[in-house]
Amino acid sequence: MSETLTREEFLANVAFNADGLVPAVAQDAETGEILMLAWMNRESLALTLDSGAMTYWSRSRQSLWRKGETSGHTQEVVDALIDCDGDTLVFKVRQTGPACHTGARSCFFRKIAK
Amino acid sequence: MSETLTREEFLANVAFNADGLVPAVAQDAETGEILMLAWMNRESLALTLDSGAMTYWSRSRQSLWRKGETSGHTQEVVDALIDCDGDTLVFKVRQTGPACHTGARSCFFRKIAK
Repeated sequence: MSETLTREEFLANVAFNADGLVPAVAQDAETGEILMLAWMNRESLALTLDSGAMTYWSRSRQSLWRKGETSGHTQEVVDALIDCDGDTLVFKVRQTGPACHTGARSCFFRKIAK
Repeated sequence: MSETLTREEFLANVAFNADGLVPAVAQDAETGEILMLAWMNRESLALTLDSGAMTYWSRSRQSLWRKGETSGHTQEVVDALIDCDGDTLVFKVRQTGPACHTGARSCFFRKIAK
């Protein structure tokens, strides 16, 4: 079960929250590893879709944030997915270098001991 | 690069938002497929860790929501991960049946056409 949407349908189906943001999960397109979660507003989402380069909205800096613009650790979009109710996005990406500012491949490098 | 945390360290590192919630991504432990994203408050997170059954906070119903409690489509926790700044959780799970209320395996069954 899989549906494809046009760019316009995709954008129209996004349910931004009260702050105008939607969470975007970046997943390694090759390995399936979840790399990070950050937020997008409508502008950063449109830029992401148009450029193919993951572009977030930095809530702390209140500004557009093209991933890797300073570090070089860019994320190239392979697939853009939207969930059933439109309030979460998943992007399968080709990650250059580490995704995490700590230098870890993924931001999710800590897990609970079993 | 991987670190393990005790249950107490894990809980202490979660940065809940202004509503007392944190986004939790459920990922199929076998295939790596991202199944859904929902939200947890401190109580639902503690219940999830103690029971091993994914338990969210329903923002629409404002109540605890043990995944599958009515549908039977439960999610058994395999691994619990937390990101670098503590504001997102990832759970690797064993999913029984479809994760999505639409009957789809994953809530992310729509993607943008290439």
